Amino acid sequence: MGVGNNMVRVDAIEKVTGGAKYTADLEPKGLLVAKVVRSTIANGVVKSFDLEAALAVPGVVKIVTCFDVPDIQFPTPGHPWSVETAHQDIADRKLLNTRVRVYGDDIAAVIAEDEIAANRAARLVKVEYEEYEPMLTVEAAMAEGATVLHKEKPGNVIAHSSFVVGEGTYQEAVEGEDVVEIDHVYATQSVQHCHIETPISFAYMEKGRIVVTTSTQIPHIVRRVISQALGIPAGEIRVIKPYIGGGFGNKQDVLYEPLNAFLCTQVGGRGVRMEISREETLACTRVRHAIKCHVKAAVKKDGTLVARKFEAYSNQGGYASHAHAIVANTSNEFKQIYHDEKTLESDAYTVYTNIATGGAMRGYGIPQAAFAAECMADDLAVAVHMDPLEFRMKNCMPEGYVDPHTHVACNTYGLKECMEKGRSYIHWDEKRKEYENQTGPVRKGIGMAIFCYKTGVYPISLETASCRMVLNQDGSMQLQMGATEIGQGADTVFTQMAAETTGITEDKVHILSTQDTDITPFDTGAYASRQTYVSGMAVKKAGLIFKDRILDYAAYMLDKEKDTMDIQNNVVVDKESREKLLDMAELATTAFYSLDRSIHITAEATSHCKDNTFATGACFAEVEVDMPLGKVKVTNIVNVHDSGKLINPKLAEAQVHGGMSMGLGYALSEELLFDKSGRPLNDNLLDYKLPTSMDTPDLHVQFVELDDPTGPFGNKALGEPPAIPVAPAIRNAVLNATGVAVDSLPLDPQKLVAHFKAAELI
Amino acid sequence: MGVGNNMVRVDAIEKVTGGAKYTADLEPKGLLVAKVVRSTIANGVVKSFDLEAALAVPGVVKIVTCFDVPDIQFPTPGHPWSVETAHQDIADRKLLNTRVRVYGDDIAAVIAEDEIAANRAARLVKVEYEEYEPMLTVEAAMAEGATVLHKEKPGNVIAHSSFVVGEGTYQEAVEGEDVVEIDHVYATQSVQHCHIETPISFAYMEKGRIVVTTSTQIPHIVRRVISQALGIPAGEIRVIKPYIGGGFGNKQDVLYEPLNAFLCTQVGGRGVRMEISREETLACTRVRHAIKCHVKAAVKKDGTLVARKFEAYSNQGGYASHAHAIVANTSNEFKQIYHDEKTLESDAYTVYTNIATGGAMRGYGIPQAAFAAECMADDLAVAVHMDPLEFRMKNCMPEGYVDPHTHVACNTYGLKECMEKGRSYIHWDEKRKEYENQTGPVRKGIGMAIFCYKTGVYPISLETASCRMVLNQDGSMQLQMGATEIGQGADTVFTQMAAETTGITEDKVHILSTQDTDITPFDTGAYASRQTYVSGMAVKKAGLIFKDRILDYAAYMLDKEKDTMDIQNNVVVDKESREKLLDMAELATTAFYSLDRSIHITAEATSHCKDNTFATGACFAEVEVDMPLGKVKVTNIVNVHDSGKLINPKLAEAQVHGGMSMGLGYALSEELLFDKSGRPLNDNLLDYKLPTSMDTPDLHVQFVELDDPTGPFGNKALGEPPAIPVAPAIRNAVLNATGVAVDSLPLDPQKLVAHFKAAELI
Repeated sequence: MGVGNNMVRVDAIEKVTGGAKYTADLEPKGLLVAKVVRSTIANGVVKSFDLEAALAVPGVVKIVTCFDVPDIQFPTPGHPWSVETAHQDIADRKLLNTRVRVYGDDIAAVIAEDEIAANRAARLVKVEYEEYEPMLTVEAAMAEGATVLHKEKPGNVIAHSSFVVGEGTYQEAVEGEDVVEIDHVYATQSVQHCHIETPISFAYMEKGRIVVTTSTQIPHIVRRVISQALGIPAGEIRVIKPYIGGGFGNKQDVLYEPLNAFLCTQVGGRGVRMEISREETLACTRVRHAIKCHVKAAVKKDGTLVARKFEAYSNQGGYASHAHAIVANTSNEFKQIYHDEKTLESDAYTVYTNIATGGAMRGYGIPQAAFAAECMADDLAVAVHMDPLEFRMKNCMPEGYVDPHTHVACNTYGLKECMEKGRSYIHWDEKRKEYENQTGPVRKGIGMAIFCYKTGVYPISLETASCRMVLNQDGSMQLQMGATEIGQGADTVFTQMAAETTGITEDKVHILSTQDTDITPFDTGAYASRQTYVSGMAVKKAGLIFKDRILDYAAYMLDKEKDTMDIQNNVVVDKESREKLLDMAELATTAFYSLDRSIHITAEATSHCKDNTFATGACFAEVEVDMPLGKVKVTNIVNVHDSGKLINPKLAEAQVHGGMSMGLGYALSEELLFDKSGRPLNDNLLDYKLPTSMDTPDLHVQFVELDDPTGPFGNKALGEPPAIPVAPAIRNAVLNATGVAVDSLPLDPQKLVAHFKAAELI
Repeated sequence: MGVGNNMVRVDAIEKVTGGAKYTADLEPKGLLVAKVVRSTIANGVVKSFDLEAALAVPGVVKIVTCFDVPDIQFPTPGHPWSVETAHQDIADRKLLNTRVRVYGDDIAAVIAEDEIAANRAARLVKVEYEEYEPMLTVEAAMAEGATVLHKEKPGNVIAHSSFVVGEGTYQEAVEGEDVVEIDHVYATQSVQHCHIETPISFAYMEKGRIVVTTSTQIPHIVRRVISQALGIPAGEIRVIKPYIGGGFGNKQDVLYEPLNAFLCTQVGGRGVRMEISREETLACTRVRHAIKCHVKAAVKKDGTLVARKFEAYSNQGGYASHAHAIVANTSNEFKQIYHDEKTLESDAYTVYTNIATGGAMRGYGIPQAAFAAECMADDLAVAVHMDPLEFRMKNCMPEGYVDPHTHVACNTYGLKECMEKGRSYIHWDEKRKEYENQTGPVRKGIGMAIFCYKTGVYPISLETASCRMVLNQDGSMQLQMGATEIGQGADTVFTQMAAETTGITEDKVHILSTQDTDITPFDTGAYASRQTYVSGMAVKKAGLIFKDRILDYAAYMLDKEKDTMDIQNNVVVDKESREKLLDMAELATTAFYSLDRSIHITAEATSHCKDNTFATGACFAEVEVDMPLGKVKVTNIVNVHDSGKLINPKLAEAQVHGGMSMGLGYALSEELLFDKSGRPLNDNLLDYKLPTSMDTPDLHVQFVELDDPTGPFGNKALGEPPAIPVAPAIRNAVLNATGVAVDSLPLDPQKLVAHFKAAELI
């Protein structure tokens, strides 16, 4: 019972039997269907529409264009609202946009009686544009005379941040020192989340309020953003989140719920459904930012890292979304994970362009940081002929590290133990030796990467979570969270936490898997690997109050002091002797129905979290590189995670598997491509190369379990970390195998063959 | 703002526009359909089934018979559970019954892919019975050698209760006194609630639990009864109650939800819907008990009531349901409403028979009591040549009355003021004079009746209610009640109460109209005219806590003492000067998003009510009786109610209209008829004569508004009272018009013509 056990997922059976109800399963009868009309240019202005042919399609109810929507700009990212204007998200889009910034921009919407009519009409909408040259790269968008995408940012640069750790400049730090320098541009690509369930919602009006059921990670934030986008009070909106088929950050943006909410108001409150197709999802929702990191680094002969200069350019795409928060995160991890003897100079830019908009995606800037930092580490190790693991042991984030800017600290430190564990698991030393001096077209290599990741968003932003518990007549309980199950197993671990705290066994903890902003305790939702840490604290806090109230009733029934009792396995027991005093079922029935003292025992608490802590880890990968084919086969791979105490080891392992799979695609095959006009070239799962089970090796997982004093149950972040170190570990294994340093992702055959040819290996 | 105003119903617009979602509107896709197979005898035993033809119907999934259900007897009435065994409801039926006790008893159920297949198969189920003589009357069931319907009650008498108020027997009291005596049997008929929406539910399994969405007045009790009927813990059941199309007590019985829940477990948790047809509803759900009251009463020449003897026989039908609670209520009101100088002897019997089962129906035994008491009052007045109003003024429940058994008291007393108000409104004295000495076939008359009605079930049973309030980001609030809106306007008055208590205006109080036992605060539901009184107290209690927490946050924001502030019209104001200090919207946004102190402000409270109070009232009716046609035309009618302070006068008036309409049908046309075999003869709305708008005169309503000190807002019962006094007032008006005392309901043409012929008036 309680935390630390391998409880079977609370939703396992219904998910595998098809009983679990997702948004589409909950649609009421008679919904209208909405379809977004999308721009066929990436940069320009809509001048006019010709709707005649579209309106003539039988079944079309209404067409709403960018000229019909409220003149309100709103932000989409799933951040807690900030009461300070300066920290509020960038409001740079309307429900439908006249100014087109991406290919497939939302310029109108058709509402029809059915899907076929909606699609047919959407295709028949004729649009006249004023078209500008598409700017697909940061360089193009920052160039002199580039068209301005958002008038609030005349140079297309959303933000530029910089900091220095240490004294002086990089140049000053290395001048006259006996150091080896490297100078690389490490570049990551645009990739997409590829959650199984594409964005879907339906909206209708009830008692003058708008009710939106949607596949989201952040129902309470969706409510707030709809309120902003439509200019109506939050209380007049109700958002319901059923089971969702994955999100990975893409559903941490409020993308189509505001439009759907608005459309239902345009048809007298009738229900309207809006399902975003896979093609639209790939091209018109969010991607992981492509970031170019220009890294200069200097290292002494003995491997001591002296100084670094970091310059990152984040390609934002058409809309701000999470904007500069991503590359700021990148810069921070680059800073934190290695220690410079002298200086780190850091600059980061986020730049509007005309490619698909970047948003939140598992890792939130850290996969990009890890690619830059871990390529750098290996490239420096190579430069000074040092074992890359030794290089890391020497220069990595030290025990007791405290971030100089955020003051986030390593409350527990498992980084070096992770490295040791991986080293031993993969036989690092033997393999490094074995793979020296290979010849021939197929070569083997071994590589590694490390990372650190904070837990939640404090102190950058607000961390708050609430929980409600309700006693049932049979002594079981309801557990109501604002935090969301998005496939990661949150409902299961919350159940375990509630059991641990209250003494009511898991089988009697009934968690509500649906969030509904009308009734669900407030929580900002699933992102930033925050829920077990932040929302878990709310479970603990509410659980203690709940247990206290139960014992208070036991004290009344038994005429004993409350403090002398405890609850264990659904029984009120004597705190000392553990002797059974009263069944929870009897207590609960009495509490409900006592003629003397009837009370509906519940508890509700908000936990405002003002803590954070670093999770760390490492990936070790072994590869076989077929150089003429440009093919990398991962033959062995292990992730080792320092994520504090595990609430549910089996679920933790599964979480790592999922992250590693994402990392493999990021490393080897995934990339969202655009043609010169900014039109996506592979916006479907045939051409966009997500790894399948055929491409996936056995995934190994190890943990270093340290009891973090700030975690509610000793736990810290695990949601996002597994996706972070895989790509650089593989890149470094390829480097080890072939001696070729590939500085951009993915390591796909075309790129590798070009590199191997250039290195005259084939 | 607040209580006492005519707020428009919160659900008005969506109910008239068809937007409101009832159970059938919420059905998920792909439900199976269940149909109950009903016995074609009223008394007997099922020996065997031949299912071959039924199972051969395409689309039939499964047939479950009375031989397949758990061997568990369970109770159906919607009472709070009692932790004392002696006070628990009678558990006398299984999910499907082998022992048949009513015509149309539930003996099997067909589950099929669609309605047509289910109905077809249900008709093809062949049943072999052992058949016994049907017992349709109390006399038949109590006769020597009558078949035993439930082995636990060998004489078919469920209960016999008796009490005496005063000293000695009736006979002793009248012996040797100069009194006039009467001896009548006043009899009421079986009538049905005729709610627009017939019982409907659908059930499926989710995470191993059963979820039942149903049209009920009492979701939390449905949960408990399903738990008993299936022998599973309450926590494994979830009951959801959407809008419902009326109940009037019939949905205060848990009739088909347990069977529906069981059936879904028989098809692997797939969703199953069960809709009870109008015919089934009339014959196989619940009816208002037909009760025969044998009344002897003695009155002095001056009109002083000396003594009464009351003997009531309640025809229970086949199953106990609410059983003896009904006729016990009848006896009590008969006792309370008039004062005997010497003695009241009272006996009441509840007897199983083979007609449709009696259950709760608006008034819960009091319409029957009022018919007996008010006929008696007029018959006594006639006997001593006294004005019936004067008789009542002299002998009715006095100011300060306290029930000698329950100790329920008149905390406020408006009975005589109601009589005076009605007297004046209808010009009683003038009309009584005018209608003396009429001749001819059409005669006019005026009559009246009074009643008293307690508020809720305390101290007979538990009165407990809970409420939860949640602050939204915009300073509006959610109001969550366990109490149910069943058409009576509960959601609207709770909204007003919340506004009154918190200072947040009604337009910003968003009440949840759906109850869901997983999340809804506990409340036993809508019955006994309890909700504004008992659940209203919970609103007040939670509201005060909620307001205190809001002001606590205001104190933090403004650095002021909490006690110096108040909330008025969504603004925190200085308590003394009423000067504006802070908008609720600003406070709420800060409370949610403050980086310093974030809290999700909510409040939840249980109110355990240990109070009760009498509501009273009178009806005055004027009629024109066409004696040859046996037709009574109500030409004027007014109900005057002493129901404490009115929360919403317009809704209160509407509530009285509905009750008066029910009273008119009860008086003149409604009666559920059975043939000799116990088969219903008029189980449809063509043959069962519910009054239509064509039959309904203008309904007039008056109130005596007294501030009851025990009511949360000075209010007391109003839900059921309006239905009570109408029938006896009309009967007494007919007596006044024709001199003929009709002692049974309804006063339909056949009966009246027979009476007028017997009296040689036609």
